[in-house]
Amino acid sequence: MLPSISGPRDLDGLTPEQLDALAAEIRTFLVEAVARTGGHLGPNLGVVELTIALHRVFDSPRDRVLFDTGHQSYVHKLLTGRQDFSRLRARGGLSGYPSQAESPHDVIENSHASTVLGWADGIAKANELRGTGAHVAAVIGDGALTGGMAWEALNNIAAANDRPLVIVVNDNERSYAPTIGGLASHLATLRTTDGYERFLARGKEMLNRTPVVGKPLYGTLHGAKKGLKDVIAPQGLFEDLGLKYIGPIDGHDVAAVETALWKAKRFGGPVIVHCLTEKGRGYQPARLDEADQFHAVGVIHPDTGLPVSASGADWTSVFAEEMVRLGRERKDVVAITAAMMRPTGLHRFAEEFPDRVFDVGIAEQHGAVSAAGLAHGGLHPVFAVYATFLNRAFDQVLMDVALHRLGVTFVLDRAGVTGTDGASHNGMWDLSILQVVPGLRIAAPRDAEQLRAQLREAVEVTDAPTVVRYSKGAVGPAVPAVGTVGGTDVLREADAERPDVLLVSVGALAPMCLEIAELLDRQGISTTVVDPRWVKPVDPALPSLAERHRVVVTVEDNSRAGGVGSAVAQALRDAGVDVPLRDFGIPPRFLDHASRKEVLAEIGLTAPDIARQVTGLVARLDGRYEDDEPAAARERETARD
Amino acid sequence: MLPSISGPRDLDGLTPEQLDALAAEIRTFLVEAVARTGGHLGPNLGVVELTIALHRVFDSPRDRVLFDTGHQSYVHKLLTGRQDFSRLRARGGLSGYPSQAESPHDVIENSHASTVLGWADGIAKANELRGTGAHVAAVIGDGALTGGMAWEALNNIAAANDRPLVIVVNDNERSYAPTIGGLASHLATLRTTDGYERFLARGKEMLNRTPVVGKPLYGTLHGAKKGLKDVIAPQGLFEDLGLKYIGPIDGHDVAAVETALWKAKRFGGPVIVHCLTEKGRGYQPARLDEADQFHAVGVIHPDTGLPVSASGADWTSVFAEEMVRLGRERKDVVAITAAMMRPTGLHRFAEEFPDRVFDVGIAEQHGAVSAAGLAHGGLHPVFAVYATFLNRAFDQVLMDVALHRLGVTFVLDRAGVTGTDGASHNGMWDLSILQVVPGLRIAAPRDAEQLRAQLREAVEVTDAPTVVRYSKGAVGPAVPAVGTVGGTDVLREADAERPDVLLVSVGALAPMCLEIAELLDRQGISTTVVDPRWVKPVDPALPSLAERHRVVVTVEDNSRAGGVGSAVAQALRDAGVDVPLRDFGIPPRFLDHASRKEVLAEIGLTAPDIARQVTGLVARLDGRYEDDEPAAARERETARD
Repeated sequence: MLPSISGPRDLDGLTPEQLDALAAEIRTFLVEAVARTGGHLGPNLGVVELTIALHRVFDSPRDRVLFDTGHQSYVHKLLTGRQDFSRLRARGGLSGYPSQAESPHDVIENSHASTVLGWADGIAKANELRGTGAHVAAVIGDGALTGGMAWEALNNIAAANDRPLVIVVNDNERSYAPTIGGLASHLATLRTTDGYERFLARGKEMLNRTPVVGKPLYGTLHGAKKGLKDVIAPQGLFEDLGLKYIGPIDGHDVAAVETALWKAKRFGGPVIVHCLTEKGRGYQPARLDEADQFHAVGVIHPDTGLPVSASGADWTSVFAEEMVRLGRERKDVVAITAAMMRPTGLHRFAEEFPDRVFDVGIAEQHGAVSAAGLAHGGLHPVFAVYATFLNRAFDQVLMDVALHRLGVTFVLDRAGVTGTDGASHNGMWDLSILQVVPGLRIAAPRDAEQLRAQLREAVEVTDAPTVVRYSKGAVGPAVPAVGTVGGTDVLREADAERPDVLLVSVGALAPMCLEIAELLDRQGISTTVVDPRWVKPVDPALPSLAERHRVVVTVEDNSRAGGVGSAVAQALRDAGVDVPLRDFGIPPRFLDHASRKEVLAEIGLTAPDIARQVTGLVARLDGRYEDDEPAAARERETARD
Repeated sequence: MLPSISGPRDLDGLTPEQLDALAAEIRTFLVEAVARTGGHLGPNLGVVELTIALHRVFDSPRDRVLFDTGHQSYVHKLLTGRQDFSRLRARGGLSGYPSQAESPHDVIENSHASTVLGWADGIAKANELRGTGAHVAAVIGDGALTGGMAWEALNNIAAANDRPLVIVVNDNERSYAPTIGGLASHLATLRTTDGYERFLARGKEMLNRTPVVGKPLYGTLHGAKKGLKDVIAPQGLFEDLGLKYIGPIDGHDVAAVETALWKAKRFGGPVIVHCLTEKGRGYQPARLDEADQFHAVGVIHPDTGLPVSASGADWTSVFAEEMVRLGRERKDVVAITAAMMRPTGLHRFAEEFPDRVFDVGIAEQHGAVSAAGLAHGGLHPVFAVYATFLNRAFDQVLMDVALHRLGVTFVLDRAGVTGTDGASHNGMWDLSILQVVPGLRIAAPRDAEQLRAQLREAVEVTDAPTVVRYSKGAVGPAVPAVGTVGGTDVLREADAERPDVLLVSVGALAPMCLEIAELLDRQGISTTVVDPRWVKPVDPALPSLAERHRVVVTVEDNSRAGGVGSAVAQALRDAGVDVPLRDFGIPPRFLDHASRKEVLAEIGLTAPDIARQVTGLVARLDGRYEDDEPAAARERETARD
């Protein structure tokens, strides 16, 4: 039946039996397709019926159906004309998130959680001002509601009680007892009928002396918001804010969800529809998975759910092990995660020291500011977080941790190009934005041994924040130093008589930098490769090292804008060292999804590309091939920025 | 009586009558002292009794008394040994915020709102783990509760119902009727007695089948959290989260606040104490001020509250006027403020277009993400915000606005060194962190005319975010261009025969740059001064302009780390232009409070300082005074970073 659905309106004529069959077909499709490519399986198995119902009730794309953390949009893709999942998350294939380039039915491409209610508020306001009469439905997980953005949005959405907006809370907490659904569903029906509204209105009028427009929180603080309160129904929080509530609804009952959505759509103001769903629904291996119910999987065998290939040691597990050792040695070391206990490897620490780990929810701001409090209180917090998500806590790193000179360690996993998760999952901003934070030090370990050592160095710092950042995936073999200058490891020495290039390597790019040096060597260009280990502040040894070479080259897995290359260049200028420098990194544009290797090739962050450009520069300095290097550089910078 | 109070424990023996007298004395002191220096008058007049009670109940600094947006800490300063307000907010005098350098009683120096609950959560966790037995009390305004950080913190604080933590909500909403306080105070007393707790416990046990540890929000979603619900008392929201609530309390009744705080302190878990206060209490001119009740004042006459000196045209009012004109011309232009309608000048737009302006609360994240939604919906939002507060929305500017190529204009007021408000109010980060945002364009207007023109250019952009940033205070006279090259205005031409220095001026620093050029001229150094107007992306005209000079100098009112200077340097490198460059800006450290002029002098961001250094550099290039410039540069960079 699925191939016959080319758009949402093809759902309109289907019978309840056909809808059930379609849901089953979609589940089978998802398990088989995602098993082949990897992807977010569990979340999508949970929203099959929900998504069908949404597209039957709302008229996308005129009405907007918005998904928070868009990895739950696979079903939406299937129902809006995209059924070729063979290259899901691969270069040129479907994105793992909504994509405006793919379909007019897609809106939010950002993979960071808790944003959907803000988008919905903005779109609903625009609809109202422009008089379009279009509707907005926003799907948000219960987890994403722990993020501060969701609160800010609810507070604003509630401020206009006649602006239509349907919030679907996709609640997949397993502990919920299904039997409650029937009773609550009945209460919910009652709760949005006109009669109940009129009944409430009287009580409100008598009690509500304060105008609450624009300030629903004030309304709650000041009390007299509700005329009547139900003892059993769980709507409390939302109604306190002034939002209508329908639920809980069995999110796997298309008809029940549809009924609730129709009521919500017709209500004419903001309404919460609380749907209970099961992550991994209908797929036994996922349901039996205690850890995360197949939240995101690699390539798996569809029957067993077992990974097809096993991976070797990765950065995350090296960190996980060292944290446990540190925990045993130092009682003052505590850990923080923003709802990513297992993905960051902190579950190992949590198993051994359950009292010393804090999961703050999808709340990076709170992760950072509570770390400030913990440090002020005499502990040393280690906040492990994906590099891209630290952006959410920039202000708190700066103003709460750094300004107060507190010893907090931020461990940034998945730094650099991550690839298949697309633009917003690359950890390519941290080395730039953190440059402005006074006192903060950044370690970029090049191998497992350095990660262990630098993590230990970081937690020794008591009067400033430190950052330890590393890549996604497998950690390479050890890269030994052949010497040190200041705090900088020398990985390879140029010909002492004739040193041409000083190559400054950042973190895991060390093997690639050694490869560049080999390639340059073959061109007769003698190259020193150094790893400063701590890339902020710039090692004072670098300017004098640079002075001994003819060219300085920096290579980093981070945006070129204001990154390590820029910091090294500035340090050279400040020292009066005007040796030409070229900085290689990620161009200042968003990167489409593809494998990490494909992305690096596309942006020219490979050993041959860099070696070719450095060769051109050296040739220019020698008076040969005058125009080679700058032309290459111009080409590398696209017009996007 | 005030001079006899040298620390909180001096409050212990005072009678109720003496406490009332002390409160009156503090108010008189505040009005007289702040009238002389300027400062945050209204908020401090509102927390006199509250602060006295806090310091009688909690044993600071062993217990921690924490203030959100620390401008409400003047009374706290008076009670903890700091009574010389003669140089408040002036260089070497008292900070306008808590300051750990001033007193062991101070903790949070950050002036950005909504952080205190996160700090309190962290400190309470540390107290628990370390077994100190110390208490934490956090004072937060009702306004600050609209910030997402507060929500994230409440959600976490509620997760541990046996970890002591007292949250004082300082609610100064004027619309609250004082008579309600008596009844609610009675209900509150009932609500935290042991009997009431036991009574609730039974109901809870029966209903609550789901463990809610760590997930209070789940608890609410899943319903069975409350055994009994009061119809009248306004505790709703907080109890839904699992927090005990006492209130509302008359915040100007020392005895009532003390009683509530004692109960809260003894309770042994997180408790909200809801205090109603009046901003500007006891000072008629403040109470009669409809706008903001003397939230922050300049130097005023203490009897009348009228400003002693009138100020001329400022950047804010130029923006305010132009926005009104734009609003008349274009129906699609809407405005957003994060609880700063008047300080950003948007009140003028709001008066004429009340339906087209959105005050989102102290919620910069929502300001940015809802702007994305508004733009997606076909409007052009202008979000006016202080430069330093945009840090809160960095992720949303990047991931929600820029990634989706939406036409949103961010207007950054108070950019650059602002001075008296101290480290966290300087707008010295935006030109750095925004460099990484693909597609985003930044305008730095140099005068009123440019501000008007560039705001218009900004709102014409439909497929990318734009930023317009300007300084605090008075706008200088017009600075005419003598020519243009590409998009760059030439403000002064060097001697065409012998151009030495290309001086790139950013925004309001144009007059200073012209002054530098004059000083260099006297040294026989011929200088071109240009204003690129749009400082991101770097104008493609700059490299070829640079090539015609011997030295490039950039000057910006922003952190040197990754700022405009670094971006220009990178653009020159990419074009293969290796002309020496020196970038001047704010050193990468936090700046102590002082006047803007004093700060600029201290960091060497003055015409004579820069002219002297550039002269040294040119002399070095000429082979004279070999070591002058780099030594000066090294000195300029302090050891802080």
